[in-house]
Amino acid sequence: MAKQEDQFKKVLSHAKEYGYVFQSSEIYDGLSAVYDYAQNGVELKKNIRDYWWKAMVQMHENIVGIDAAILMHPTTWKASGHVDAFNDPLIDNKDSKKRYRADVLIEDYCAKIEGKINKEVDKAAKRFGDAFDKEEFLATNGRVVGYQEKIKSILARMGKSLANEDLADVKLLIEELEIADPLTGSKNWTEVKQFNLMFGTKIGASAENSTQVYLRPETAQGIFVNFLNVQKTGRMKIPFGIAQTGKAFRNEIVARQFIFRMREFEQMEMQYFVKPGTQKEWYESWKETRLKWHLSLGMGAENYRFHDHDKLAHYADAASDIEFNFPFGFKELEGIHSRTDFDLKAHEEHSGKKLQYFDHEENKSYTPYVVETSIGLDRMFLAVFSNSLVDEELENGSTRTVLKLPAVLAPFKAAIFPLVKKDGLPEVAKEIMEDLKWDFNVFYDEKDAVGKRYRRQDAAGTPFCITVDHDSLNDKCVTIRHRDSMEQKRVAIADLKEIIKAEVSVKTWLQRM
Amino acid sequence: MAKQEDQFKKVLSHAKEYGYVFQSSEIYDGLSAVYDYAQNGVELKKNIRDYWWKAMVQMHENIVGIDAAILMHPTTWKASGHVDAFNDPLIDNKDSKKRYRADVLIEDYCAKIEGKINKEVDKAAKRFGDAFDKEEFLATNGRVVGYQEKIKSILARMGKSLANEDLADVKLLIEELEIADPLTGSKNWTEVKQFNLMFGTKIGASAENSTQVYLRPETAQGIFVNFLNVQKTGRMKIPFGIAQTGKAFRNEIVARQFIFRMREFEQMEMQYFVKPGTQKEWYESWKETRLKWHLSLGMGAENYRFHDHDKLAHYADAASDIEFNFPFGFKELEGIHSRTDFDLKAHEEHSGKKLQYFDHEENKSYTPYVVETSIGLDRMFLAVFSNSLVDEELENGSTRTVLKLPAVLAPFKAAIFPLVKKDGLPEVAKEIMEDLKWDFNVFYDEKDAVGKRYRRQDAAGTPFCITVDHDSLNDKCVTIRHRDSMEQKRVAIADLKEIIKAEVSVKTWLQRM
Repeated sequence: MAKQEDQFKKVLSHAKEYGYVFQSSEIYDGLSAVYDYAQNGVELKKNIRDYWWKAMVQMHENIVGIDAAILMHPTTWKASGHVDAFNDPLIDNKDSKKRYRADVLIEDYCAKIEGKINKEVDKAAKRFGDAFDKEEFLATNGRVVGYQEKIKSILARMGKSLANEDLADVKLLIEELEIADPLTGSKNWTEVKQFNLMFGTKIGASAENSTQVYLRPETAQGIFVNFLNVQKTGRMKIPFGIAQTGKAFRNEIVARQFIFRMREFEQMEMQYFVKPGTQKEWYESWKETRLKWHLSLGMGAENYRFHDHDKLAHYADAASDIEFNFPFGFKELEGIHSRTDFDLKAHEEHSGKKLQYFDHEENKSYTPYVVETSIGLDRMFLAVFSNSLVDEELENGSTRTVLKLPAVLAPFKAAIFPLVKKDGLPEVAKEIMEDLKWDFNVFYDEKDAVGKRYRRQDAAGTPFCITVDHDSLNDKCVTIRHRDSMEQKRVAIADLKEIIKAEVSVKTWLQRM
Repeated sequence: MAKQEDQFKKVLSHAKEYGYVFQSSEIYDGLSAVYDYAQNGVELKKNIRDYWWKAMVQMHENIVGIDAAILMHPTTWKASGHVDAFNDPLIDNKDSKKRYRADVLIEDYCAKIEGKINKEVDKAAKRFGDAFDKEEFLATNGRVVGYQEKIKSILARMGKSLANEDLADVKLLIEELEIADPLTGSKNWTEVKQFNLMFGTKIGASAENSTQVYLRPETAQGIFVNFLNVQKTGRMKIPFGIAQTGKAFRNEIVARQFIFRMREFEQMEMQYFVKPGTQKEWYESWKETRLKWHLSLGMGAENYRFHDHDKLAHYADAASDIEFNFPFGFKELEGIHSRTDFDLKAHEEHSGKKLQYFDHEENKSYTPYVVETSIGLDRMFLAVFSNSLVDEELENGSTRTVLKLPAVLAPFKAAIFPLVKKDGLPEVAKEIMEDLKWDFNVFYDEKDAVGKRYRRQDAAGTPFCITVDHDSLNDKCVTIRHRDSMEQKRVAIADLKEIIKAEVSVKTWLQRM
């Protein structure tokens, strides 16, 4: 656990130091749970977005994209259920005036009990040494079993009360457990109230004419309301998909874990419209396809797992998460949901317009079912970044920090160095840069010793370094060094472009799917 | 004028019919002045954004990008002047309860007088025939001269009153001119009030803890507040630039002209930080560079012109627009502004933090000056789309509608047709598609006669059509047809990829700069 926290701290400081992520409005001491992507971060983010878009849209004949606005007609959110039910249960402490999520207070309480269990396990493990059987201990130790049952019963009661909107019982539970304000210790709580997570704003100028609108809390609805226009103008035949990347906003009360849960974030979603009755097979097929996409990046199959949902949202008949091994444990990275015809039907009802598809083969109209794949771009960024950041011990005993980004996603594909800042070497290096920059991002650096420049590019995530030395003037060759293996090879300047392209192109990486 | 209006109407309906732009939330009868980009529009928009980004960031060693959040610390907008001065003067009609921009009411009044002038000109032109000298007529005809002077004096008085915040005089002017509510004819007006154009929202949950924030009305400030972090972590040396593309929001009261003026829009901005005293030369240099970028797209030099500002914003010491010949006349497409050190100084003052650059050559610190290039992505989309849409008369007397998009920006680069839907031709066509789709967007179509398929792709803007016929099975060649010239050539299937790439790649087009 401590090791995980260390790694997470390293991720945060490295992200700032190497120009990947800055706190938003840092000069004004930041805006909570909002971040800015810096000069390298913007390129990594763009490359992830492009890698997804190419895999999902360009490679699929029957998937097209759209780019719907963030501001939508407010009835959209009435139809989707967000106006009525996109809530968090909040509770205020009357003394401290601080506000908390009631469910998080209770979960944090359970986490403390979990901590006690872990302590017992550690103690026993020490006592029994190699003979220790953790599973057996958890199942038989009286004290530990008691703790586990307590957690189970607390969470079950909370789940039931929230499902039944019995907020009074949630408050009662907090009082019974004697949960105190974590900041002040006060137990003087208000009632629990539902708080809507959508950011609201007003469009239009006058009091009479202004309309309450929302910043979209998800991008999916922009696809549903455009479904028929896209299908008709694009002459799409079922099954077909509509993909979209874009910003969404949620007024999270407890926003933490860096860019994992932000108030402003970006989604990459695809809604796949299918014939009713075929949704299960498409759901399974998209689970498999999406996992393959992740695995193509080579970040280790052991870092991914499916988490199939037992409890389903009201609109779904099947749902699964692809979880990734973040520095703070396995957490949701992408969701694959079989959303039935819930959304299209809801929009039909609220708009009074038919959102049906005429199936020429079946010679009848129906409301399609929808299978959704939905991934957080910022989470994907964090997954790639944190997984790539390693400290490596070298043969000479020193360590180097390397950001082993998949080359297809790296902000800069190559850095170009003249060995020294004289004898015409900078001129040759710049000539190479001028040639390569038409095809990919390249970085020029002539400051400090080459070893130091290598280290800087290792830490920044650049997969290739190209060094121009005195021999280059005669043999028209340069040394190319690979970030991960640190292997160096002598290659002809004329071959550089194709060598690097083969290693960094989207095509090369997608072919691994 | 009528011809222009016709062309604009054609643009609107073509944009919908061919999947470029849809009204936002159309099933709910739309959200005013907000639009969604449809399946082809999203690709055109992406390609414009990429073309800009590559030209500005990838090709310039000393320009880097960022992606700052839409939500920023509210003091940002205090410092920038937007909280206090980003206003429109509004007036309500007491009878109709409708709200108007006072300045627009007055400008519309002047436009009516302009209409009278045009009528006089038309009448005189008819009367005098070939002998008519318009310039002379405008300068000497007593009635027309009177109209012109009236317009001039009205606009001068309005400009002065607005500049002096003398809103009572703006109202007096409306009353003196007897301007009526265009919808109802009522002249029963309220006072003129300033209305802030920023969309506000609240972040955080409780009344005590929530903060009033704004949807950014421009992307520039996201660059200024990150200036020092980027400079330091990127080890940037002046002169250097920071580029950004992203959404901005303005609660426009009078939003019209399709995607030309929207409430939600996207900017592509670059702020170039320079040594004080050198700003004029960089300003001239960026004017030239940006015009070259536009001209590289081959949309006709006669469709661009500079409009240098006489009246400067409070932060600028020079400013110019690149205007484009839209269907409704020459209008601002891009702005190049010499912003002095106004923004950085303002943020220094409000944050209490130094935003200075240490110049090693000069051995001193200073606040850099800034030259900005700022282009509306949606306006650029409209410029490209409307300029490309033409009706062409063919030799056989029929007409075809062609969307002559610059090939580098076209959503699909090639469409692939089997001549007939049998004899193994679809299989060969699909094989070609499977091969080409790794490198660019391709479209497959086997429905209807080839001539009809050509017309569809002409209207959709696809630069190349590839037809597989029976000979293809033996000679491994296909017919490639060019959208604009309609020329057809027989080429080897094996050469297709390189032929098309050469015509559509960003590199090919940027090299024309």
